[in-house]
Amino acid sequence: MGGAVRDGWLVRVAAVGFPVVGVVGGGQLARMMAPPAIALGITLEVLARDPQDSAALVVPGTTVGVEDDLEALRAFAARCDVLTFDHEHVPTGHLRTLVSEGVVVRPGPDALEHAQDKLVMRQKLTALGIACPRWRAVTTTDELAAFGAEVGWPVVLKTPRGGYDGKGVRLVEQPGDADDWLAGADAADAPLLAEERVGFTRELAVLVARSPHGQAAVWPVVETVQVDGVCREVVAPAPIHGDHALAAQQAALRIAEGLGVTGVMAVEMFDTEAGVLVNELAMRPHNSGHWTIEGSRTSQFEQHLRAVLDLPLGDTRMTAPQVVMANVLGGDFPDMYDGYLHCLAHDPGIRIHMYGKQVRPGRKVGHVTALGSDAEDVRERAGHAAAFLRGDIHG
Amino acid sequence: MGGAVRDGWLVRVAAVGFPVVGVVGGGQLARMMAPPAIALGITLEVLARDPQDSAALVVPGTTVGVEDDLEALRAFAARCDVLTFDHEHVPTGHLRTLVSEGVVVRPGPDALEHAQDKLVMRQKLTALGIACPRWRAVTTTDELAAFGAEVGWPVVLKTPRGGYDGKGVRLVEQPGDADDWLAGADAADAPLLAEERVGFTRELAVLVARSPHGQAAVWPVVETVQVDGVCREVVAPAPIHGDHALAAQQAALRIAEGLGVTGVMAVEMFDTEAGVLVNELAMRPHNSGHWTIEGSRTSQFEQHLRAVLDLPLGDTRMTAPQVVMANVLGGDFPDMYDGYLHCLAHDPGIRIHMYGKQVRPGRKVGHVTALGSDAEDVRERAGHAAAFLRGDIHG
Repeated sequence: MGGAVRDGWLVRVAAVGFPVVGVVGGGQLARMMAPPAIALGITLEVLARDPQDSAALVVPGTTVGVEDDLEALRAFAARCDVLTFDHEHVPTGHLRTLVSEGVVVRPGPDALEHAQDKLVMRQKLTALGIACPRWRAVTTTDELAAFGAEVGWPVVLKTPRGGYDGKGVRLVEQPGDADDWLAGADAADAPLLAEERVGFTRELAVLVARSPHGQAAVWPVVETVQVDGVCREVVAPAPIHGDHALAAQQAALRIAEGLGVTGVMAVEMFDTEAGVLVNELAMRPHNSGHWTIEGSRTSQFEQHLRAVLDLPLGDTRMTAPQVVMANVLGGDFPDMYDGYLHCLAHDPGIRIHMYGKQVRPGRKVGHVTALGSDAEDVRERAGHAAAFLRGDIHG
Repeated sequence: MGGAVRDGWLVRVAAVGFPVVGVVGGGQLARMMAPPAIALGITLEVLARDPQDSAALVVPGTTVGVEDDLEALRAFAARCDVLTFDHEHVPTGHLRTLVSEGVVVRPGPDALEHAQDKLVMRQKLTALGIACPRWRAVTTTDELAAFGAEVGWPVVLKTPRGGYDGKGVRLVEQPGDADDWLAGADAADAPLLAEERVGFTRELAVLVARSPHGQAAVWPVVETVQVDGVCREVVAPAPIHGDHALAAQQAALRIAEGLGVTGVMAVEMFDTEAGVLVNELAMRPHNSGHWTIEGSRTSQFEQHLRAVLDLPLGDTRMTAPQVVMANVLGGDFPDMYDGYLHCLAHDPGIRIHMYGKQVRPGRKVGHVTALGSDAEDVRERAGHAAAFLRGDIHG
């Protein structure tokens, strides 16, 4: 083997027999795959839009390129044993082309489409008999009016593609309120997704991993606490009835198998008096699973690497009775280092994760995790640290 | 801030206010600092001898250079907020020069010398009143004979500098057996270190971290199981009397303070009927502390980064009642991937760490960690996985 230097820079040579995983996208999800890849001896390569992307800062094999450039994807894939994703914005057509050329893509385009297109997802879940909010594809005001008359107003209206963190979703009080969106939908023959507004008691997420062999592993169900459509806190395990937790895990496992998922998938759900209903799917490690880095014997990031490489999956048991993750959003101050010092001093047990991002108001720039035995105490510790880093509390 | 590309390669820009730690040496210790640096948002830079060094494979900021080249050290240090080490082979004179030029070096050369020179260490520990094996500096056969007559034969003879993993150490049965070493010692006026051979019940290690502020944190005492002078297994906590454990921790804390250590220090000890005796010091993360990656709320690698940056130290409590780490040594086969697959399938809870090294017989190429409640079960799991990876067991 032996080393090589090109223009003074290193060319890496992996240990004999160990694989290379290529991640499309350079965000914090790709960044958080780096630590388990280092431990497992797996070489990580990243295709990032910008050299300052979160993962690009920490992964030596970073290539700068965009995910809708087929040539860039093809060249990147040639260096990797398997291609996977930090986000769902890679054109399905490009992925089908790569698969036809022999590239191993996990999750594959057939599965991934269910996380890219909410209408495709609703059709498939309904076919699988998975409980969802009532829904309909609508292109006209009349169709929306008929659906609202059936399920009651207000109605939740979604663009099937491209939405995240509350974007691409609106609450419609009466039929005429959505004419602007519907005009485009009708013209383009691209239906919108109308859903009943569910009266839920809490929002849940179930993380599941599945390998090409068909081995699957599920983590305990968590509660996700949303503020303005953005996840603020994740509480593990979710304080819900055991029957609902089991039903949620069973639904996630059935979806993973039914859709042929490979890798980690997050299933976001509503917990209601009558049972759990599936809201959204994400086919990659997810914000609702960041708690697993310290809170589970196997983190979602390690499990994703294991699953896409068809390695045996790891133990998903919790490492403490209670774990809470809180997102750190950017505040008014670009320098978070003082708040960081305070948090480390205040709580020697708090686990801080910073994504290497420049701070902008509202931007997710990191997260904190607290572990312990007392649910209220753990939640208070995580919340305090996140609020201090954001600058909501001043020392 | 904004990004930059130089010759097609990325130039990294850290988040506002977050520091850069430079590690001299590119071995597995530097490699294992990368995951906590990524989590903490700390930028890591590595000065490695070879582009294929364990850490060079995973750290984007790797510079190729040797640690005894003052110019290389100076240029490297200029990019870092603090300089620290993967090994103790950096010339103390170079470090003193850098310190005089304003470079922040942690641990500093005054402390580091005690890990580089065993005679300096013995003199200092004796002055601090720390219990050690009886010892003497010897340059002639007569001096060795006198010491042996006093403490009994055989005597342990050590070269004060450059030894590791059993090298630079020999057991001398009678005075004349060491004439070859003593001829050189006498001529160079470089005494050897003679020590009594201690009748120990087990070998222990205590890991301690100390920050420039003077904050210190100690982990539970562990047993190190050595085979042919090389650490085979580490058992946490060590199955020893509570009084001995406390005495061991107190000794480590006193040494850290007395020597002005900054960063992590490993104190290797002998447990004897009469109490604990200090054997060796390592002033960096150490093989005896690899179990802390999963076995402690704060790993030795994270704690080292926190300590050298003068950040508040983290919680050192264990995450499970019993933790065992076993080293993976190279066997006869260059490709360990089949054994790796077996281990992951056999035990979903086993934690495997591979260092990205090409396999050579006897070379430390990785380690495995098992966690649980039953000491024997945990030890059996770790031992099985390590033996399988080595190729000692065949499937």
